[in-house]
Order: sequence, then C-alpha cells, then structure tokens
Amino acid sequence: MLDKNYLYTPGPTPVPPQVVAAMGRPMMGHRSEEFAKLHGEIVAKAKLVFQTANDLFVLTTSGTGGMETAIANTVAPGDRVLALVTGNFGERFAKIASAYGGVVTKIETPWGTTFDMDQVIQVFEKEGPFKVVLATHNETSTGVTNDIAALGNYLANTEALLLVDAVSSMGAMDIRTDEWHVDIIVTGSQKALMLPPGLALVSVSPKAWPVIEANHGVRFYFSLLEARKSFEKKNTPWTPAVSLFYGLDAALDMILTEGLTNVFQRHARMTKAARAGARALGLKLLADNSVASHTVTAILPGTEVGASDLSKILQKELGVTFAGGQGQLKGKLLRIGHMGYCSELDVITAMAALEMALHKAGVAVGLGIGVKAAEEALL
Amino acid sequence: MLDKNYLYTPGPTPVPPQVVAAMGRPMMGHRSEEFAKLHGEIVAKAKLVFQTANDLFVLTTSGTGGMETAIANTVAPGDRVLALVTGNFGERFAKIASAYGGVVTKIETPWGTTFDMDQVIQVFEKEGPFKVVLATHNETSTGVTNDIAALGNYLANTEALLLVDAVSSMGAMDIRTDEWHVDIIVTGSQKALMLPPGLALVSVSPKAWPVIEANHGVRFYFSLLEARKSFEKKNTPWTPAVSLFYGLDAALDMILTEGLTNVFQRHARMTKAARAGARALGLKLLADNSVASHTVTAILPGTEVGASDLSKILQKELGVTFAGGQGQLKGKLLRIGHMGYCSELDVITAMAALEMALHKAGVAVGLGIGVKAAEEALL
Repeated sequence: MLDKNYLYTPGPTPVPPQVVAAMGRPMMGHRSEEFAKLHGEIVAKAKLVFQTANDLFVLTTSGTGGMETAIANTVAPGDRVLALVTGNFGERFAKIASAYGGVVTKIETPWGTTFDMDQVIQVFEKEGPFKVVLATHNETSTGVTNDIAALGNYLANTEALLLVDAVSSMGAMDIRTDEWHVDIIVTGSQKALMLPPGLALVSVSPKAWPVIEANHGVRFYFSLLEARKSFEKKNTPWTPAVSLFYGLDAALDMILTEGLTNVFQRHARMTKAARAGARALGLKLLADNSVASHTVTAILPGTEVGASDLSKILQKELGVTFAGGQGQLKGKLLRIGHMGYCSELDVITAMAALEMALHKAGVAVGLGIGVKAAEEALL
Repeated sequence: MLDKNYLYTPGPTPVPPQVVAAMGRPMMGHRSEEFAKLHGEIVAKAKLVFQTANDLFVLTTSGTGGMETAIANTVAPGDRVLALVTGNFGERFAKIASAYGGVVTKIETPWGTTFDMDQVIQVFEKEGPFKVVLATHNETSTGVTNDIAALGNYLANTEALLLVDAVSSMGAMDIRTDEWHVDIIVTGSQKALMLPPGLALVSVSPKAWPVIEANHGVRFYFSLLEARKSFEKKNTPWTPAVSLFYGLDAALDMILTEGLTNVFQRHARMTKAARAGARALGLKLLADNSVASHTVTAILPGTEVGASDLSKILQKELGVTFAGGQGQLKGKLLRIGHMGYCSELDVITAMAALEMALHKAGVAVGLGIGVKAAEEALL
C-alpha cells in the first residue's frame, strides 16, 4: 500500500508544507533581536485570531500545560471554582483545578450536549460566589460547542473570572475573546493552528491580572507574571520551541491571508458536509445540529459493526485515521477531525472512506450515498 | 551580506539537515501504534546516551520545565534541600526548589569554579540530613563541569536523592547516570541533542520512585507518576511534540552511529582547540583547564574592547553568534558553544571569526594566531 495517510484526528492535524518549510529554517539564539522581532510579530498576529486586545503569550508546552497555566495563576487552595463539564476535556479542566486546591463545584451535562445557561445562572446564584468559572468552548471528545458568549456576558457582571479551553476551536471558529469577556482563553498549536503539538497560546484580560498578581499557587514554569515580565522585552522566560515559533508565524500568515471570516465559513461548511454525509449513510450523530462543533464530528456508528472495527478497516485498508471515543464513550465513537489544513474536498474524501469501510465491513450501504449528500451540502 | 549564520550559542544549537528532514515527516496521531513504536525506540536509544537502565521520560517542555519536573516530584514544603550553586543555572535550580517550599541550603562557589567535594561533605555532615541535593553537571553560564561522580558516590550511602541538571552536556560528555548514582538527571533537546528547543528528557532511579510516590507537591502536567503510567502503554500523558519526537529519533541515531566514545572525544577536542585559540589571542579563560566544560568555552576578553562590542562585530559583520554573559557576568563574557552538530573545523571557524573581530575592533592581534593554535591543538 502507498505510504500515504489521511489524518482526520482532532489534533494533531496535518501540517501544511509551507509551515513544514518554515520550521526547517536554521536555529537562532532566542535572546537575539531577530527572535524578539519574530516573537512580537507572532503575538500581534495571534491576537487577530483570538480577536483580543488582551495580553497574549505563546508557551512551550502542550494544550494541557496551557490549561494548567490558566488554573495555576488564578486558583489558590480553598478557592471556589465552578466547572462546566460537557465531556472529557471539561473533566480534565476540573481535575487541574482540584489539583491546585480549588474547591470545585461541577455542573455536568450528558455527553453530546452543551451546558445549559439557565442552570448555570441558577447554580451561580444559589451556590455562588465562585472565584473562577471553567468552560470548554469546543469539547473535542463529543463534538459540541458551548455558548461562551452567553456565559461571558453573564459573568462580566460578577467578580468571577472566566477561563475557557478553546484548544480545538481557536483559529477555526469565530471566538470573540474580548466581546465575550473571556478572561483567560487557551489553545494548542496542533489543532486549527496547523502546527505540530508543543505550543500553547494563552490570552489574559485586564480583569484577570490583579487576581494573578495576588496568586501564589503557581510555582515556576507556568508563571504568567514571569511571562509578562519577559514579554516586555519581547522575550520568553524559558527557552521557547524556536522551530514551532517559525511554523506558527507561517501558519498565522496562512490564516490571515485566507481571512478569518473565510476560515470560519470553511469550517462551518465542512461540518455541514460531514454531518450530511454521515446521516445519509444511516449513522447517528452524537450532537444536535444546533450545538455541533465545526472542527470535529462525532459519529455513533449505530450499525452492527462497531466503531473500533470500522477504525481498523479505515486505518489498515484505506490509510485513513479517524479518532475513537474517549472516557465513557471509549470504543463507541468515531470522531472525524476537520480543522486547520483541511479543505471541503478532504471531507468528501473522508466520506468516501467511511462508506467504503462500511461496505468492507459488510454493512449494506449504498456506495456514493455519503459523498453525494456531502457534495449537496456544499453546493 | 550573504544570509548565512554561524550559531555558537550554547543552545539552541544548529540542527542537522537530516534532523530537519525527519521533523518534516507528516503528523501522526499520538495515540496510534505507530507513535507508540517510535516512542519506545526513542526511549531505548536515549537510555544508551544517558548510560542508564533507569526509567526515562521525554517531556514536552523546555529544559527548565524538566528541572521543575525533577523538583516538583520530590520536594514538598519543608523538605531540606542542599543546592550546589556554581552559576546561573545552579541558581535557577535552587530557586525552583524554594518555589516548591523546599528549605534550601546553598553552597555557592565563585563563578568559573566548581563545587568542592570536601566542603560539600562537611556541610552535609554538619547540617544534614538533606532530602534532596541539587547539582549542575555542566554550568552553561560559566563553562565549568562539576564532578558528579564524586558527589554521587558520596550520596549513594545516604538517604538523599541526587538531582542533576545536565541540560548542556548530555549527549556531548561522558555522563554515567547509573555508575554515578544520579537519581534524576535532566537534559533539554536544544543542546548536544541537536534538536530545536521544546523537549526535556528526564531519567528516574529506583531510589527516587518511593519518594516520588509519597510526594504530593506536583500538580498535573509535570507528574512523573502520570508519565510512568502512560509509558507502560508506550504513550505520554499529554500530547507530545510529535515533530520534535521525529527529530529526536533521527538525532539519537546520528549520535549512536558516530559512537558515544567518538562523540565525547570530539567534544573534548573542540574544547581544547577553542581554549588554545583564545589563549593564543591573549584572551582570558574563565575556567581552569581541569574543570573546563567540553560544550561551552567562556572567555573574558580582557582587552580594551568589551565582550558586548566584540559580539556586535561578530554578529553584524561576520554573521557569527556567540553568547554573552549571564547574571553577575552580564556584558563581561563571550561564550562559545561547541556542542552537538559542531565539528572541529567549526571551532576553527569560530577562532578565525574571533581574531578578525578583534582586529576589526582595533586590538593589536596577529591574524591567524588563534587559528594556528587551535589547529595545533587538534593535530
């Protein structure tokens, strides 16, 4: 079989050749003027994608390290935290807050659904105040997108800080960091930003800084105060992952050249196509249309053939990688990532692979049905 | 001027084209069998370089994050820590221990010298016991190498754990992790391992594990227990920097193909050449021959022209980057990194640039003198 793979995991995602080429540039000293210039430009471009005028930092760590940075700088032992848990990554966010001694109240919603704003307000008013509220913008494990705008608007009138995990949506979906009053928002490099893993990007609001300045929970590497101090010299406190910075600069150029609105629309259309295709093949979608993520589509095969068997056929016979389920949905789900360096035609390819895999597994499915529905959704 | 740069910073160091090419390989899912296989192979090869049979972990963070990992997993508030500080990075190691609530006793030695084993034993016996001892193998800020073998032999008969920063020497110098009884040793990817920054490698001894298991200071991302749990499935707890893993595999192959002994001898010879060259040019060396680092040579210009002026000429007129001084030696030092993807001829080039820069700065220096001395040292 040709050694050509089609990667549809919701991170790491394929890296564009332009970005690969940029990452191959020769090393430079990270204390040089040249690096300071690059760093400044990257941060300015990233702020456009984040739609923020807030401070923004590029950290050498994975998305989870970015989430820990958000918590470590704001949550001290005994602090009350409200965690809106809509899946595996919401669970992780809550877990990190507990690890920092936060007293965590969880609002859990069934996987595949979003948090309910009325319930959030009710809990907040009955059991509040909370110092920090944790939410997931795009829950990678279930393929739903939560309404951060509504949450942010509500919390703006409270003392609480809003910390948002946007690891799998920033750069793909319309996230209005400032308009939505998000105090700390976190993303990772290996999703819609089209880079390999290794960087986390974090923005910090003026409302968050006094809390961070008063916090003593953070130890060393994840200190935002150190990051801010170094950034004043356009530098980073610890050695940055230089090659990923080169790549990030190139990837941000690609996003801004395509245009944010076009990028957002492309992702919305890819979701529509993937969902139409899967439905036409008789498969069940975990999330409702109204809350469906634009970056990952979660499918419950609902056929006599399980998700794991389909995954194996896709992988071994077609060179196509979808992700499986996580946590309580382990083994039950197929997740198709369609973000970053992914075009509408790539989604058609995924649909073709899906219907061929179903056929190979012996499911009575009309060939071309999924592809046709996806094409119709796009035209 | 031709856009060609000669990078002699002691990290980041130049990345070999073979490694750049490897890093450009297409992304793969980090939960795939293929990644598990790669991960297993990398760890096996890295253990050869570390000369250890201990557990070894590849973490997605910079060297400082690796140092924090060592501390976070072993030092709890109130624990007594002995820090042997011989320069800027020894200082940082001590600082991290304080950040974790360690009660730190420091033995500081003048910059450019190593710790004195008699003094260490004296302090240990008078003021001990200590739970953890921190030492720097190769102090990047001053270009000295400390005698970890002697320290480890002594501590092996105590309860204390030995934590060693080998960020700027692992893969360049003969470090016998197990023979020297080092409990946790840390390195970074961007030094002798010839990669861009972004990874830290950490090995953990059987003596360290019970301490780590009993420790509750670590919060989340830097947990070695999580790393161990995931490694049993050849995996990583958080998303790994996949492209750097590709590169690390290729870089380890290069090191093992050259042969560890040859690699160590090459670095020893490069130091000899750099020191002979600098001396012939009438420059002062910060460290004595007997303790000179094999990866970085620190020069006090000792001429009417300062280190900063020489740096500027080297950079702007010759495309050559040396590092400057750090901490108390800021502005006073020239540091030449010669590690990783650096050959003996590259050191000759550095000497040529150095004597040309001196000449350009108006210092009466015989051209060719430094190069000649370096060549003689090599032949």
